[in-house]
Amino acid sequence: MKKVSESTVGRLSLYLRLLKEAEEQGILTVSSEELARRSGTTAAQVRKDLSSFGSFGKRGLGYSVSDLIAELRSILGLERTWRVALVGAGRIGAALFGYQDFRRQGFHIRAVFDSDPHKIGQQWDELVVRSDAEIEKVVREEEIDIAIIAVPESAAQRVVDRVVQAGVRGILNFAPVKLHVPPGVALKNVNMAMEMEGLSYALSNEGRSRRQNSTKEGE
Amino acid sequence: MKKVSESTVGRLSLYLRLLKEAEEQGILTVSSEELARRSGTTAAQVRKDLSSFGSFGKRGLGYSVSDLIAELRSILGLERTWRVALVGAGRIGAALFGYQDFRRQGFHIRAVFDSDPHKIGQQWDELVVRSDAEIEKVVREEEIDIAIIAVPESAAQRVVDRVVQAGVRGILNFAPVKLHVPPGVALKNVNMAMEMEGLSYALSNEGRSRRQNSTKEGE
Repeated sequence: MKKVSESTVGRLSLYLRLLKEAEEQGILTVSSEELARRSGTTAAQVRKDLSSFGSFGKRGLGYSVSDLIAELRSILGLERTWRVALVGAGRIGAALFGYQDFRRQGFHIRAVFDSDPHKIGQQWDELVVRSDAEIEKVVREEEIDIAIIAVPESAAQRVVDRVVQAGVRGILNFAPVKLHVPPGVALKNVNMAMEMEGLSYALSNEGRSRRQNSTKEGE
Repeated sequence: MKKVSESTVGRLSLYLRLLKEAEEQGILTVSSEELARRSGTTAAQVRKDLSSFGSFGKRGLGYSVSDLIAELRSILGLERTWRVALVGAGRIGAALFGYQDFRRQGFHIRAVFDSDPHKIGQQWDELVVRSDAEIEKVVREEEIDIAIIAVPESAAQRVVDRVVQAGVRGILNFAPVKLHVPPGVALKNVNMAMEMEGLSYALSNEGRSRRQNSTKEGE
């Protein structure tokens, strides 16, 4: 299987979501044009993305919605269950724990850790929040595949080193810091503060260039 | 001012975060090498990123931490306060509302909306959750700059159309759907489900290629 870019994988996720929506609407087949329209890309892009994994569509008939859903689920590794640990039981951690989409997609949170004595021992659905001192032991026992990092930035790298050492192969990081992982470990970052700064940069710059380009337009 | 890529803006955000950390540690000047080491990039990249905005460092002395913080805050549009509306008062919305970093960086949530009658009227700190029927009125009255979209995907585009119509110029989207905004409106997406699918793709594929390359390594 050839190397596929992150943005291709992102589009495959989006196609999957749109196909499920189509399936709920009772739609049986979709054309690449329709999938392109729903996902805000071009039909050529859709065909190129899907053809990297073999050809699913039939000329003139389009793609079978259920077949393509099954194929995308297989490509994206969603046919199995992934065992997830959540490190950090603060507000972000709590929101992620309650995020229904994770469970629906096969990401099952099997352990929650925190360092705060007030949080340790709390019952979260069927789980008990455990001390971060137990990370290595529990990650091994529960055969955790993926760790979600929702701790303060000063603690994040140390936590990552520990879960990776204990066998975790995927990290979803919410701490606003650049983390280092060894080769063979996948890392994804979700940084809300940085996204907001990207917005404020765009808005500031937009105002500035508009003022430069035309004072009549005002702000 | 020349056009700067999203990834450059992302690195500027990261430099700012690292410089604040250095400032807290009592460090007065940093070299581009030190900033590169902390941010996981190269000194040449740091110098290139910063020189796009004028030259701040002194050869052999490095950058003044406080000056560079001030410059980056100005570049990123963080010297002012941004007025933010949160649309969607579910779990994700609640976590974002409590996210201290937003306020620290000058993003002030001035309004919260939901469509659920059980949520409307709830007191959230100094704000009352308002009906989404009031979006246009409140966005105009409060002069909202940025809207955070934390509603189900089926409702997201309609909400975006309404807030943009009412004058919002920046969107931070948490709904797992591709949104369309008119030119001049900045859009950033945070999609946790897709990031998780990116991880499961990487982990599945990793296993597969390892097996292909060497059966001895096992999984």
